[in-house]
Amino acid sequence: MSVLTAAPGAAPTGEEPPDTGERHRLTAVTGLAALSLDAMASVAYGPEAIVLVLAAAGARGLGFTLPVTLAIAGLLAVLVASYRQVIAAFPDGGGSYAVAKRHLGARTSLVAAGSLVLDYVLNVAVAVTAGVAALTSAFPSLYADRLWLCLAVLVLITGVNLRGIVDSARAFIVPTVVFVGSILVLIGVGLFRSAPVSTEAAAGHASVLSDNATTVGALLLLKAFASGCSALTGVEAIANAVPSFKVPRAKRAQHAEIALGAVLGVMLIGLSVLISRFGLQPVEGVTVLAQLADASLGHNWAFYVVQFATMILLALSANTSFGGLPVLLKLLARDNYLPHVFALKADRQVHRHGVLALALVSACLLVFSGGDTNTLVPLFAIGVFVGFTIAQVGMVRHWRLERGPGRHGKALLNGFGGALTGLAAVVVTATKFDEGAWLVVIALPLLVLAFETVHRAYTRIGERLGLGRIPEAPHRDRSIVVVPVSTLSRLTCEALTAARSLGDEVRAVTVCYPDAEDRAQRYALERAWADWDPGVPLVRLSSERRALGRPIAGYVRELAASAPGTRVTVLIAETEPERLWQRLLQNQRGAVVAHAVRRDTDAVICRLRFRLT
Amino acid sequence: MSVLTAAPGAAPTGEEPPDTGERHRLTAVTGLAALSLDAMASVAYGPEAIVLVLAAAGARGLGFTLPVTLAIAGLLAVLVASYRQVIAAFPDGGGSYAVAKRHLGARTSLVAAGSLVLDYVLNVAVAVTAGVAALTSAFPSLYADRLWLCLAVLVLITGVNLRGIVDSARAFIVPTVVFVGSILVLIGVGLFRSAPVSTEAAAGHASVLSDNATTVGALLLLKAFASGCSALTGVEAIANAVPSFKVPRAKRAQHAEIALGAVLGVMLIGLSVLISRFGLQPVEGVTVLAQLADASLGHNWAFYVVQFATMILLALSANTSFGGLPVLLKLLARDNYLPHVFALKADRQVHRHGVLALALVSACLLVFSGGDTNTLVPLFAIGVFVGFTIAQVGMVRHWRLERGPGRHGKALLNGFGGALTGLAAVVVTATKFDEGAWLVVIALPLLVLAFETVHRAYTRIGERLGLGRIPEAPHRDRSIVVVPVSTLSRLTCEALTAARSLGDEVRAVTVCYPDAEDRAQRYALERAWADWDPGVPLVRLSSERRALGRPIAGYVRELAASAPGTRVTVLIAETEPERLWQRLLQNQRGAVVAHAVRRDTDAVICRLRFRLT
Repeated sequence: MSVLTAAPGAAPTGEEPPDTGERHRLTAVTGLAALSLDAMASVAYGPEAIVLVLAAAGARGLGFTLPVTLAIAGLLAVLVASYRQVIAAFPDGGGSYAVAKRHLGARTSLVAAGSLVLDYVLNVAVAVTAGVAALTSAFPSLYADRLWLCLAVLVLITGVNLRGIVDSARAFIVPTVVFVGSILVLIGVGLFRSAPVSTEAAAGHASVLSDNATTVGALLLLKAFASGCSALTGVEAIANAVPSFKVPRAKRAQHAEIALGAVLGVMLIGLSVLISRFGLQPVEGVTVLAQLADASLGHNWAFYVVQFATMILLALSANTSFGGLPVLLKLLARDNYLPHVFALKADRQVHRHGVLALALVSACLLVFSGGDTNTLVPLFAIGVFVGFTIAQVGMVRHWRLERGPGRHGKALLNGFGGALTGLAAVVVTATKFDEGAWLVVIALPLLVLAFETVHRAYTRIGERLGLGRIPEAPHRDRSIVVVPVSTLSRLTCEALTAARSLGDEVRAVTVCYPDAEDRAQRYALERAWADWDPGVPLVRLSSERRALGRPIAGYVRELAASAPGTRVTVLIAETEPERLWQRLLQNQRGAVVAHAVRRDTDAVICRLRFRLT
Repeated sequence: MSVLTAAPGAAPTGEEPPDTGERHRLTAVTGLAALSLDAMASVAYGPEAIVLVLAAAGARGLGFTLPVTLAIAGLLAVLVASYRQVIAAFPDGGGSYAVAKRHLGARTSLVAAGSLVLDYVLNVAVAVTAGVAALTSAFPSLYADRLWLCLAVLVLITGVNLRGIVDSARAFIVPTVVFVGSILVLIGVGLFRSAPVSTEAAAGHASVLSDNATTVGALLLLKAFASGCSALTGVEAIANAVPSFKVPRAKRAQHAEIALGAVLGVMLIGLSVLISRFGLQPVEGVTVLAQLADASLGHNWAFYVVQFATMILLALSANTSFGGLPVLLKLLARDNYLPHVFALKADRQVHRHGVLALALVSACLLVFSGGDTNTLVPLFAIGVFVGFTIAQVGMVRHWRLERGPGRHGKALLNGFGGALTGLAAVVVTATKFDEGAWLVVIALPLLVLAFETVHRAYTRIGERLGLGRIPEAPHRDRSIVVVPVSTLSRLTCEALTAARSLGDEVRAVTVCYPDAEDRAQRYALERAWADWDPGVPLVRLSSERRALGRPIAGYVRELAASAPGTRVTVLIAETEPERLWQRLLQNQRGAVVAHAVRRDTDAVICRLRFRLT
């Protein structure tokens, strides 16, 4: 389903984890299971998308389900063949971003990256809604609450990802095998039946079949084709993850890719044959797949197995976005197209931002769609096809530069694939523009613009910092440390000790307000200071407007201006209480002073925490 | 309405602003206008509260409106006389918190403070709902949206207070005079009419009069009395603000207090006479005051003047909580009962927390009540009467300690007042317990508990810090500065310059991860470091788990342990970008390192911001 799937157990870019030996890498069979999850899962909503469009032309329209599916299977064959070539040409993992970056220039690669980002986000929303639709088809009483169910599933997946999960190829194999197995059994059994064995799931639901059967126009067929193409999402995942395979990597990956195409093609065609044979009509609240399970296997335990397998596979497929998007964001951040914080894999809290952002945007999409898969599928297909097209066009360029045998034929194949997917992108955008595709048409250029703006800013910052040049030699300045003081305590002693250790000269400052109470406090402080005699002058700053930060910042500025070549440091001492809630008891003077000094001066700010234990 | 009203233009505790000369202080007349706002505004909901209770006993019950009001006016007279004595005894401002603190011990003063806090919060909710009720009485079509209107008014008041307002006694005079004037005209005109001149506002609204007229029991009368006592809120405001008056302060304040009592008494009795004369019945969606305006003045411009004056006065009265609560919180924070941040009046962002917290709690109350004044009024009255009672009991104690003429009579008067208000507190709590009073009964002890917990924590912290003792003399330690480094740039040079200025010894550290890409980067850094030769060693720390903060914190801990008597400082250098949005581009390495070092070590953390301009 997703386009730049992070191979479970190994990242697509191959740079980590290096300790993973050859033993942990994928064979053609385990690779198929681990990486085809998303593609297989799209069987749950692809055929449905076709049937729903054709239903607008009544029963006559539904008769075209098989031909449209065959056209999609043809496109699948071309794509698989094309990606076989991508695997050979980009053995380090050839996502559309990587291909475009090498062959089509920065901006096109950013378009590819933007469409990938959109796909990851939409993948979550589509998979969650489709998974919940599988559940509500089995338990119709839950249908009214589908949006809440979707959000609950999203919260669950987000929670799991926030805690951190151990990716494991093996964990993905079982549900994929169960799902594919049950679909194949469904198809096999169904082919031996001449009529539905049960229609119980669909009973009582309103049919969405159009009453006034119109003629079946070319536009409708195009629309059905475009919608159905959502079933093709995910076929590029294997090409992205070549480094995760065992040696010979490219060969094994190619085998897995072809096997993926074969299984996916068989499932798509098989399901559409059954749809035609059973004269199935789309009804509200029950998925086409659920109806097929009913019709072929009966409304018994087998039906529930199919529904649960579908739901779990879709939930896992939503989960892959949470693994994959951070990898993409890291690549973009390394190339200075996104804030560097995304490239900082080091500490967990940073990763958290990405997971939460993805969850938030997905939640908005879920609410926007009302938990309905078919609202989201057209949005999804656009980004996928933009990515496909860019990868194929990049491959044509690749073959033009490459000098090898049969390069013309290969270029032709990729060119043909690119033309088909480009056409599909145009068709799906045009036919679904009013139904939400405009959102993608707006979002994609905005994303590219954001990438470029970030890149320009980094370039400017890099120039200012003299990155890549040897800087001038550091020297030693005279150092004055300013210590804000308000009362006398062990904390003050600690602060002055630290300040004297750090500075050649130390000055304590206290801010006075023009009111009686404060005046009394100040006299007390000055008397105590004189008694204490710490060898540090106490400078009195007055503030008419009861400000605390500004007077200190002003003093620091004056000090820096009056003594050039002197480094002024402000040392702020605070207590660190025993218990967490006692942080509320801190007076925030430190934060106020630090904020003002940071805003108004270039002084170094030191913060000393005095532990109260 | 509120209990410890901040005198507009001058704070009640008299310690600020000291530059305000005698010229800006209040006379009896301006003081009455400036400080009586809350008390006057309670006329808008006090009589209504009585009528609503009595309506449960049908028309016969409503016949008791005047007797109940007379009883309340009697209590008002006692209260005014009592507060005249409070003014004389506490010329520095005698809120119930101040009186209790001096005469009744810490815990009682905290009960007084807790009830004041609750009053401030409830005052906002009651005034906003009553103001909106005045509006929807004039424009019935808005009635359905009253909760949203309440929240909108709250947002408006909050917004104004977040921006900061210039308090001015004068700004309060005009609306108060217009309101009192229009109520007096309403009463005067109404006394000359024998029947309502219009009932248009009430037309079409459902009567809430009980059909089965029961006997009028003592409990019902007590309940009506207790509800009506909400009209007495605010009579203590003048006593709290004595320092804001011109010399002779106490005399002028006493005159203002008596005038307040007289005007409030006349309005209450006048309105209840009219209620009886016009045989007025409470109806849903129209306030009693609106019905009276209708009946007395007709449904014309005069009616709208009364409604608008009421609404504006109530909005201003809600606003006084935003001025008054921070003053109370400051007093409590000074006495170590609340986090000191509330006592830090200095910088604006601190004040903001209080305003937002007050707005949030008020919003919850508005939602809880559904925007209905009469749900909130009983909650309001409890806190007010607890405060009254504590102040009066404290005064009895005061007269026992004081040796002056007539002290027995004075003690008797305050004791009588205290007994009456104490009784009222018990009655209103008992009769309204199910209707929300339980909330106050739970909240008040919790508040007191919170105050005491905070106080204990501060006492312990103060002991640990040795507050009030002369600390030992500061000394000078040897200083090692650790500088985390990841690339080489002008920022690195700046960081090492600062570090060499601050430390006797400087060590640059870099964290390495065990992957190929990072290894390449590290070699590049080490080669560049050798070329640069800044005279500072580059220490390599390795992290298997791709952590950034922990290895540095661990190194700092080891360094501190290996060289006792040495002060270890971590200097984190970051760029300060030109534009605000570019902060997003920072890689957060600094924050991650600072967090880990702060958590795991006692090292001083220095942050240097390198401005990119």
